Amino acid sequence: MKGRGILAVALALSLSACVTAPAQQASTVPAPAAKPAEPPATMQWLYGSGEAGALGIQAYHAMRDFVLVQALAKRSGQSVVLAEGSTLQAPQFRTCRPDEPLAVILDVDETALLNLGYEYDEAKGRAYDAGIWDRWEKTGAGAVAPVPGAVTALRAIRQAGVTVVFNSNRQAANAAATAAAIEGAGLGPAKHGETLFLKGDVAPGSEKDPRRALVANRYCVVAMAGDQLGDFSDLFNARDLAIPARRAAATGGTFARLWGNGWFLLPNPVYGPGVRGSFDDVFPADKRWSDPAGEK
Amino acid sequence: MKGRGILAVALALSLSACVTAPAQQASTVPAPAAKPAEPPATMQWLYGSGEAGALGIQAYHAMRDFVLVQALAKRSGQSVVLAEGSTLQAPQFRTCRPDEPLAVILDVDETALLNLGYEYDEAKGRAYDAGIWDRWEKTGAGAVAPVPGAVTALRAIRQAGVTVVFNSNRQAANAAATAAAIEGAGLGPAKHGETLFLKGDVAPGSEKDPRRALVANRYCVVAMAGDQLGDFSDLFNARDLAIPARRAAATGGTFARLWGNGWFLLPNPVYGPGVRGSFDDVFPADKRWSDPAGEK
Repeated sequence: MKGRGILAVALALSLSACVTAPAQQASTVPAPAAKPAEPPATMQWLYGSGEAGALGIQAYHAMRDFVLVQALAKRSGQSVVLAEGSTLQAPQFRTCRPDEPLAVILDVDETALLNLGYEYDEAKGRAYDAGIWDRWEKTGAGAVAPVPGAVTALRAIRQAGVTVVFNSNRQAANAAATAAAIEGAGLGPAKHGETLFLKGDVAPGSEKDPRRALVANRYCVVAMAGDQLGDFSDLFNARDLAIPARRAAATGGTFARLWGNGWFLLPNPVYGPGVRGSFDDVFPADKRWSDPAGEK
Repeated sequence: MKGRGILAVALALSLSACVTAPAQQASTVPAPAAKPAEPPATMQWLYGSGEAGALGIQAYHAMRDFVLVQALAKRSGQSVVLAEGSTLQAPQFRTCRPDEPLAVILDVDETALLNLGYEYDEAKGRAYDAGIWDRWEKTGAGAVAPVPGAVTALRAIRQAGVTVVFNSNRQAANAAATAAAIEGAGLGPAKHGETLFLKGDVAPGSEKDPRRALVANRYCVVAMAGDQLGDFSDLFNARDLAIPARRAAATGGTFARLWGNGWFLLPNPVYGPGVRGSFDDVFPADKRWSDPAGEK
């Protein structure tokens, strides 16, 4: 079935842009874009569809079952955090000590929490803005929802004696508000420096590997969850990694075996490094097709 | 991390619409839209990202493991196809007979196959067109790719003695070309009327329940996979089912338990019933937020 909503959205966006363009040209203060008729297709799907909700449940079911088996076995398995010195071509993992406590590490935004309030505000017709996002971190705790499946899975994981650690690029300065958002959604506890690590903790910058390394020294990390490959390793965010090579790396070799078996992915087509690419990046050159009946 | 590609795409679409509008007004033959600078965000993510590739592998790992356990147990479990008389509020499943052969049912497009050639052609700047899609079914076999994870999972499922049945809304008249696309991608065999059911088979129309019922009479169906809720039950496509109610139904009660445990979802934000909805459909009324600093 191929009925579409995309073109309707594109048309709505097009019309609103055409209408507002003259006003923007006539003034030095950019007018806010008119509210489009509908949210973008990516948000319709992620926040509105039963399909995306089901994907959340499916991922958290798999993570819960995987972690419970690890916890019951109490065996000396391997950490799922890449060991120092790893490369995409040669990933390495350390073996856990037999008596090490177990933990899972997961991202927050669009992994554990759906940022409904923020995305609603952005979908009305503005671009991403770091200042607005900062105010969202500070004041948005009441306008989030848990990703479907997350609350019951994290509860079961904690009941099995496994510590749940969040690793987010929200600002360390907003730790209290972020903990309140997590706990208010039923996903807590989240204690800054113990079970919640944020941008600015351990090292400056948005790299998550230093925080992962700290947690991996304290625990045997049996599972990780995220909506972006950088939630698993910063190697996937290398600047010189082309889009097709990034996809090939994530879906080949050792990493292919990890999806659903220690690494658990949540869907997010709304933002992030997975939402970019030219025609040549996205569509392989040997998979092109044109309508044999030609242009109308 | 909140860097975005959506607005760039929206801007590109907006500009192309503004540029082509006068030409469309001046002629009775609509000019083809200019090729946008990039594919839509939904396609960048689904066809280009490592994240979406990983979700495919994760879903197929879960399906394979679930089916292999069922096949090894050789026990009299329950069919995962809804029994006649089911409703969303009261789903029912029949118990399989002990000696019944096992099968899985899966959709084709964006579940087993990625329609790269067709989507490339559409992304260049046109709307969905049923005639073009029909020609794609007939001639596109060389420009598809398997969903990551599908080839190895289906091979393992067949090796365990479980029959793989495809249930697609491609046209029955194009059965040979669709079987060639499936088999060319390494996902076969697919034999029309036995392991491949298409629109027009069993009953007219795009409802998949009549075809599912036929397969469920021949086999104990231990798993289903699809990218849309209609790949699991036509009840999710009821015309009077509002978007929030559809998401609530799919993620609550009996259905919540099935995701990853008999029902397996593949991501697809590019098209379908999951890609629609107004602001009120997509964003719950109690999860709204506005920047406290106000509009700039």
